[in-house]
Parts: sequence; C-alpha cells; structure tokens
Amino acid sequence: MQDDAYYMKRAYEQALKSYEEGGCPIGSVLVDGEGNIIGAGHNMRVQSDSPILHGEMSALTNAGRQKSYLKTTLYTTLSPCMMCSGTIVQFKIPRVVVGENDNFGGNEDFLRERGVAITLLDDPSCKELMSKFIAEKPELWNEDIAEE
Amino acid sequence: MQDDAYYMKRAYEQALKSYEEGGCPIGSVLVDGEGNIIGAGHNMRVQSDSPILHGEMSALTNAGRQKSYLKTTLYTTLSPCMMCSGTIVQFKIPRVVVGENDNFGGNEDFLRERGVAITLLDDPSCKELMSKFIAEKPELWNEDIAEE
Repeated sequence: MQDDAYYMKRAYEQALKSYEEGGCPIGSVLVDGEGNIIGAGHNMRVQSDSPILHGEMSALTNAGRQKSYLKTTLYTTLSPCMMCSGTIVQFKIPRVVVGENDNFGGNEDFLRERGVAITLLDDPSCKELMSKFIAEKPELWNEDIAEE
Repeated sequence: MQDDAYYMKRAYEQALKSYEEGGCPIGSVLVDGEGNIIGAGHNMRVQSDSPILHGEMSALTNAGRQKSYLKTTLYTTLSPCMMCSGTIVQFKIPRVVVGENDNFGGNEDFLRERGVAITLLDDPSCKELMSKFIAEKPELWNEDIAEE
C-alpha cells in the first residue's frame, strides 16, 4: 500500500498522456483494498469519440466487472462531475481522492452527503496541467462538461 | 417525429437484443429535436465486460460527441440508476421517458429537482422482460446495480 501522493501521481501520468494525445487531461486510477491499481485511465472524448469516458469512467471501464467496490479508492486529478459523482454513489465507492477542484468542482457535498469520504490534495501539478488545457482548448473543455 | 410509444419500442428492441445475447435487458435511445434517433444501445456488462455501459450510457456512447443535449430526449426501458441520472444532469438532457420503475427506480425525484422532465410509461413489455431477467439471473442483476 502506497500513500495518496503515489496514486495521484499515477492518475496525473494518465492525464499527461491524454494531454500529449490532444485530449482532455484528466486521469484516474482505481485502487483495491490491498493497494493494487486495478484500473487506470484518462478522458477519452477525443481519442475514442466518447462523451462518457471521463477519466474516472475510463479507470472503472479498464478495471472491468467487479462484484464489489466497497474496498476501493478512486483517485482523480480533477473533482468529479455529476456523471462521475453519480457513478461513485451507484457503485458504492467509499473514498475518493481529488487532485484539485480549482478548475472544476461542486459535487463534493453531494458525495459527502451520501457517505463518500473525500480527500482533496490541492495538487499543484494537476492544477497547472488542467489550467493550461482550459486556456488552450476552451471549446473542447466546454464540450466535455456540456457548457455552452 | 413519432410518439413516445414508438421510441420506447426501439429501446425495448435494444433490451430484447441484450437479453437474447445473455446480457442485462435494458435498452435506450437518444432522440434529437427533429425526432431522429441519434444513439441506440443496451446494457453491455456481459457483452463488453463493461460496468459503466448501462443502456443509457450505451445510447450516449453510440451517439458520439455532441455539442449540446438541450433538444434531446432520452428513452430508457428501466428507470435510470444514480450513474445514469448523474449523467442526464451533467449532460443537461431536459427530458427522460422511462419504460417502467417497478423493477428498479428511486432517482426520479433527484432528476425532477434538477429540472429534468420525467414521463413514466408504465410499459407492460418492459416490466415483463426485466422481471423475467431478474428471476433468471439475480446475481448478474445485483452485480449490475452493485447490490451485494
């Protein structure tokens, strides 16, 4: 079992990979109760023409079918949107570690009210990469969060 | 533009296809402002080893990237789970037509409170297919909604 900074670094590497591919730089890893990364992924809007594969959804997809998420922790470079927050609640993921919520956020209370523990790392690397992306590709970012 | 029963029939055909493939029989179609079906799909847990591709998520995936969902209507044979409800809110889909909520439900108020119009058709075919599936494969169904 590694610490939160270790797993966030893995999520950040996913985000950076997506940025370098021309996609939205949001990454995520799903960690099981023994500290194994069972799924890692990044936003796939550009890469797979997919509106639903946000970083968190990609990590969950790549983890495949699970009988239970009760011992997992989800790491995400950016605070989860309503789709990903609904998914966290539906899947009963008990803990979410968030890289930053300066560039996007607002669903932390929704999650906390439903018993999800939130740890906010306020990570400068996550913040910087996301800020750079939003400045460079505001249209792509707005499309990703359905803002017009 | 067809009526709600027409589009629900298309969603039901998706559900039936999934049932015949050995999967979870929940289907969905996304319809644009002109009445065109721009995405159709069914639950893909069994078929693609995917935990996130519920019927609604498959329809959204198959519709591909959209700039806006403000003129769309989402049809689903079964009342949306928290993941799919979160997605509907995030994507700002203004109207959802639900085949039935006898076999699963509970998020209608969450959606209504966020401005989503819900039409419940209480469709006997949707109900019957879903009931049959739950009786035949309770473990698969529980896995799909993360019940243990």
